[in-house]
Amino acid sequence: MNADFQGWVKSHQLQIESYLQNHLPAENHAPKRLHEAMRYAVLGGGKRIRPLLSFAAGELNGADETRAIVVAAAVELIHVYSLVHDDLPCMDDDTLRRGKPTCHMKYDEPTALLVGDSLQSLAFQLMAEFSLAENPKKQLEMIKQLAQAAGSRGMAGGQAIDLESVGKMLTLPELEFMHIHKTGALIRAAVMLGAYCGDKLSEEQLDRLDHFAKCIGLAFQVVDDVLDAEATTAALGKTAGKDAEQNKPTYVSILGVKQARELAKALQHDAYQALEHLGKSTHRLLQVTDFIVQREF
Amino acid sequence: MNADFQGWVKSHQLQIESYLQNHLPAENHAPKRLHEAMRYAVLGGGKRIRPLLSFAAGELNGADETRAIVVAAAVELIHVYSLVHDDLPCMDDDTLRRGKPTCHMKYDEPTALLVGDSLQSLAFQLMAEFSLAENPKKQLEMIKQLAQAAGSRGMAGGQAIDLESVGKMLTLPELEFMHIHKTGALIRAAVMLGAYCGDKLSEEQLDRLDHFAKCIGLAFQVVDDVLDAEATTAALGKTAGKDAEQNKPTYVSILGVKQARELAKALQHDAYQALEHLGKSTHRLLQVTDFIVQREF
Repeated sequence: MNADFQGWVKSHQLQIESYLQNHLPAENHAPKRLHEAMRYAVLGGGKRIRPLLSFAAGELNGADETRAIVVAAAVELIHVYSLVHDDLPCMDDDTLRRGKPTCHMKYDEPTALLVGDSLQSLAFQLMAEFSLAENPKKQLEMIKQLAQAAGSRGMAGGQAIDLESVGKMLTLPELEFMHIHKTGALIRAAVMLGAYCGDKLSEEQLDRLDHFAKCIGLAFQVVDDVLDAEATTAALGKTAGKDAEQNKPTYVSILGVKQARELAKALQHDAYQALEHLGKSTHRLLQVTDFIVQREF
Repeated sequence: MNADFQGWVKSHQLQIESYLQNHLPAENHAPKRLHEAMRYAVLGGGKRIRPLLSFAAGELNGADETRAIVVAAAVELIHVYSLVHDDLPCMDDDTLRRGKPTCHMKYDEPTALLVGDSLQSLAFQLMAEFSLAENPKKQLEMIKQLAQAAGSRGMAGGQAIDLESVGKMLTLPELEFMHIHKTGALIRAAVMLGAYCGDKLSEEQLDRLDHFAKCIGLAFQVVDDVLDAEATTAALGKTAGKDAEQNKPTYVSILGVKQARELAKALQHDAYQALEHLGKSTHRLLQVTDFIVQREF
């Protein structure tokens, strides 16, 4: 990671942290325990990969950062709500997340349930509250896209497919179908909504960007599976080896580590190709792509 | 209930049922089990009191029914998501809802969790997808209001206060504070968003309508508490006597049944008064008020 990009990552991670700090309900406002738990779940952790994608896609498309940051925050809130719910005992039953006790371990199950529910509401509140586009009709379209990405045909649906697949042998296309929903839909939303904050794009440009987003969404998951199989819990900040323990099909269980790493490279290459001929300055988005594929924890 | 109003209730209950039928994901679309469970939770049950309020408030304000029905559906989806999550074992641990096994009893806990999550997304998707106002900026404001009513300063926050109050003696103002959030916020949204679908209202008219909505939100809860204490499980369609069993503070535990009934009447009177001098044809909204206060199950 070169120094310029490192600085960009750091400054945008700080920006999103500060924005979330300011837009989450204050801890001293009733109900205090819920608000404290919401802040605990959201703040001070995570690589903020989805916000970085929104910022980079916005930058590529000349978006005002005061707009891109709203989208970045909303997408991150949806992501964190999904983590809080996924960690619950009735789902993955996990105790460690982003290096800290999971929300229901630190607080309790009903509070964690309400934290997730409230974070989802807050995401849509921010998307409706602040101006994201000259044309408010475009902003309505953006809200619709985020709702679709989060819902039963997107992220939550992917989670349902994941539940059904525990203990089953999936084919590679079935696994891909699951991840296109479970992680892909929201990563795609992060890219597309970031870009929508900027100039108008042609149909062809939107298609290319969409294909790029699909590729990195999958690449992200492949790398995640490799890290879950290889990294330690300490490095990962969440319980390592959970997939194998829970008998979940992963890219590693189907392909093995070596081939999974090759698949991640191939997807990275596809992502690169999708951004060629976009007629935009894509270097930041390519840097974030490398950041996603080459991350070690 | 006179025949005219009975017909209006019936026809609007059918309309909202049919709209929800058409806008919930189809059961044969993947993930099928999740979509089946979403439809199970939403369809074929409930008095649809919040949608009726949206329709009546829309009618009062000359709103096109093709708009009011979107708001009615979105509010009902938020309401049903909250019921599905509230019934989970880590919350109220209930087995019966609207005369049927609760969602997690019929399916399983993780599915019920995702059903609630997905219904919330779908509510915001509908609010953004269909035109609700001439001015799309007004529609963004409506989405923001629904998000606030649902979130940690509204319904979900009320639920958190409820959790904290189990086993405690609350004063009447504390109980009122809880219910203004837990049930009041969404009932208020049902009324206000229904009205927003129509003509522009003056500040004074909005204030009056808002006060009306607060009164019936509380009246609704007082009646609910009385019914929980007096009705049978069969008549209620959900487990009766849960409040006392769970040692929850209610209007009945604080005031007794007789005084609680009087409070409901007083709130009904306040609601009536708020609608006087509104300069609008309020008879339908008054009929719905009576329907809420006089319902027997």
